[in-house]
Amino acid sequence: MADSAEQASLMEPLALSRCLEQVRKTTPLVHCITNYVTVNDCANALLACGASPIMSDEPLDVEDITGICGSLVLNIGTLNTGTIEGMRLAAAKATELGHPIILDPVGAGASALRSETASEFLDGYGITVIRGNMSEMKALAGASASTRGVDVAPEDVVTEENLAASSAFAKRVAARTGAVVAITGAIDIVADEARAVAIRNGSPLMASITGSGCMLSAITGAFAAAGQDHLRDAVISAVAAMGVAGEVAAHRMGPADGNGSFRTYLLDGLFKLDGAMLETHANIASGEE
Amino acid sequence: MADSAEQASLMEPLALSRCLEQVRKTTPLVHCITNYVTVNDCANALLACGASPIMSDEPLDVEDITGICGSLVLNIGTLNTGTIEGMRLAAAKATELGHPIILDPVGAGASALRSETASEFLDGYGITVIRGNMSEMKALAGASASTRGVDVAPEDVVTEENLAASSAFAKRVAARTGAVVAITGAIDIVADEARAVAIRNGSPLMASITGSGCMLSAITGAFAAAGQDHLRDAVISAVAAMGVAGEVAAHRMGPADGNGSFRTYLLDGLFKLDGAMLETHANIASGEE
Amino acid sequence: MADSAEQASLMEPLALSRCLEQVRKTTPLVHCITNYVTVNDCANALLACGASPIMSDEPLDVEDITGICGSLVLNIGTLNTGTIEGMRLAAAKATELGHPIILDPVGAGASALRSETASEFLDGYGITVIRGNMSEMKALAGASASTRGVDVAPEDVVTEENLAASSAFAKRVAARTGAVVAITGAIDIVADEARAVAIRNGSPLMASITGSGCMLSAITGAFAAAGQDHLRDAVISAVAAMGVAGEVAAHRMGPADGNGSFRTYLLDGLFKLDGAMLETHANIASGEE
Repeated sequence: MADSAEQASLMEPLALSRCLEQVRKTTPLVHCITNYVTVNDCANALLACGASPIMSDEPLDVEDITGICGSLVLNIGTLNTGTIEGMRLAAAKATELGHPIILDPVGAGASALRSETASEFLDGYGITVIRGNMSEMKALAGASASTRGVDVAPEDVVTEENLAASSAFAKRVAARTGAVVAITGAIDIVADEARAVAIRNGSPLMASITGSGCMLSAITGAFAAAGQDHLRDAVISAVAAMGVAGEVAAHRMGPADGNGSFRTYLLDGLFKLDGAMLETHANIASGEE
Repeated sequence: MADSAEQASLMEPLALSRCLEQVRKTTPLVHCITNYVTVNDCANALLACGASPIMSDEPLDVEDITGICGSLVLNIGTLNTGTIEGMRLAAAKATELGHPIILDPVGAGASALRSETASEFLDGYGITVIRGNMSEMKALAGASASTRGVDVAPEDVVTEENLAASSAFAKRVAARTGAVVAITGAIDIVADEARAVAIRNGSPLMASITGSGCMLSAITGAFAAAGQDHLRDAVISAVAAMGVAGEVAAHRMGPADGNGSFRTYLLDGLFKLDGAMLETHANIASGEE
Repeated sequence: MADSAEQASLMEPLALSRCLEQVRKTTPLVHCITNYVTVNDCANALLACGASPIMSDEPLDVEDITGICGSLVLNIGTLNTGTIEGMRLAAAKATELGHPIILDPVGAGASALRSETASEFLDGYGITVIRGNMSEMKALAGASASTRGVDVAPEDVVTEENLAASSAFAKRVAARTGAVVAITGAIDIVADEARAVAIRNGSPLMASITGSGCMLSAITGAFAAAGQDHLRDAVISAVAAMGVAGEVAAHRMGPADGNGSFRTYLLDGLFKLDGAMLETHANIASGEE
């Protein structure tokens, strides 16, 4: 737990609970164009937070759907050419409407198509939030190509030792892209160009299931839609919410439980999360020296 | 619980348990062309009822698959142009073979493509059952465009107050389309052109997971394949079965359980459901004045 | 349990635990081109074993992904023409790199497209392992077209009575294709051209969920990547691991549990499996007379 005076200086008092309650109160519709591996978990994670998911990737369908939603989540986990075209049309529409757009560059650095597509969206549309692991972020920044598939490469893991340098990197990416940047892992970093915070929540078990990152990107869409006028706080709240839910889930694990049960408990944890629990358990501190 | 004399007059005695047992005994193969969000739940729901799922949407594959199955389920939740063509070929084949076709118009009213595609199938093929929420049904009937994404719009919710009018609407849709109509929500309505029944089962938690509706459409395919000669009773039985399973699932919820656990319990509830439980707990009454 | 002297003669001592530990130690990246019904389960099953999944089917993406992975799994459960082209490019790349390729011919025999596609891959690429049910295997061998959708046809079930004949058939398929052949069902057979073993593990509940077979094919990719120099033992170990995990899962079933819970417990069982449990519970014997 960070010193609470420090935590208060990083976020408005009760900002975390207010952000969560805004989602639960406004039930934002979130348009997801996402991979078919974890799409069911993304939908249930959005419902667990109080939001309402709509998945649509067909170019002929996406503009109508974007138009009725409050935000757009683009996840390139199982890209195909038809979906990319759907993403373009949806992103153009969301940009035009001023909706938050969350980009999850799954596997950027692992293939040319993924790296190029992520860059195309960063450069060509109004991306509001980027959420990925450090290897993906480095690939986007042109700094590395060491992505280990969809996992972070060992040399890219954010540690206490490299936290200050990692935070500075996150701020540079935020400055270059104009987006709030969320780099998640054992320590999570959320940065805009002015400030970076470190969030120390979650459980190593989150890496034992597919979809922890995708679910976080999806719910970030809900928090961003509900809290568009305080976007950085909304992203911090989404990251902290997923982390606290992960801790609750880890705490429930029994001796026979493995990643099947953890997946269930993680959704349960999000579903049961309230503002008070989030305020109590969130561990947010400056990521800077 | 409706008065049992009334219930007896609405369905043959033991029709509910007979319909369920027909599914368990005949293990119908059900061809599903369905969205990628809830497809796994649909497959497991069919298996939980004793049926066998096959998913196939490729135009070059669907006719062979339709040919070996007992029914076809068309769910437009994540439409794309390739899938629509697969749906056309499968629907033509199923119509030719006289197989029941269940249409789930997910998000009709939310986009032009969804509304037009649902209408195309309703008008052009032998759709046997339509299963959706009231907003989707109104969109199909040209009466409204207030669908809230894939959820029912607040003004469209079926209530005790509007039940008679909603039932009359369901009968008109049935008369116009020749299909058995299932409009599901807090109160479910199943109608053909002659009669409408109201089914008061289920749990509000069913709206907290993605896929309750999709799963119901899928198992309706199984009940329709097994009970093609008493289709209305088969649809009532499927709707009641899902509702009772939802009640059983809600009853199991512990203090830490959320929508992750509910999803598991719902499948478990379907799996363990037998004819006696279904007869005992189903709450079926006339939906008319 | 087979006589342990016999078991020892069929596999090197501790080969099972060594194969599992190789997966857990080396964390192989497994490229899966698989159906959208069970893809989430496949990803979580790979993670449960200690491997890392990457799903990619887009022709423009697959070669890069194959290039960074240790093996390739091709599952034709929801074939479409775009995916087939992705499979071709990935299979060519994996063949060129000498990576193990696992083919799961889901529904071969149920449609011309599935049978032809499975045959195309068997004939045109370096398929290393084929994993399917007996109906699918017979369809591939041109011996039958009695596949009951994606399930084995009743007349094709491997029994104690036809085990010797079934094993001989498996060896012939192995000889013709050059692949290790895994025919799974109530009794599993793993064969190369020289020898066939019978594995008597698992639970009838495995047929009550979608994806038991797909998950096994996926983890076979992990075991094959980690144990490429003793491929037959690696496949036996994967089949036994899934069977033992199924037994552990079945043992956990409570009175209200159905296939929803079983699915969770099966992943948990894989996650918690260690070499000692696998050695103790695996039931491996000769499949030949």
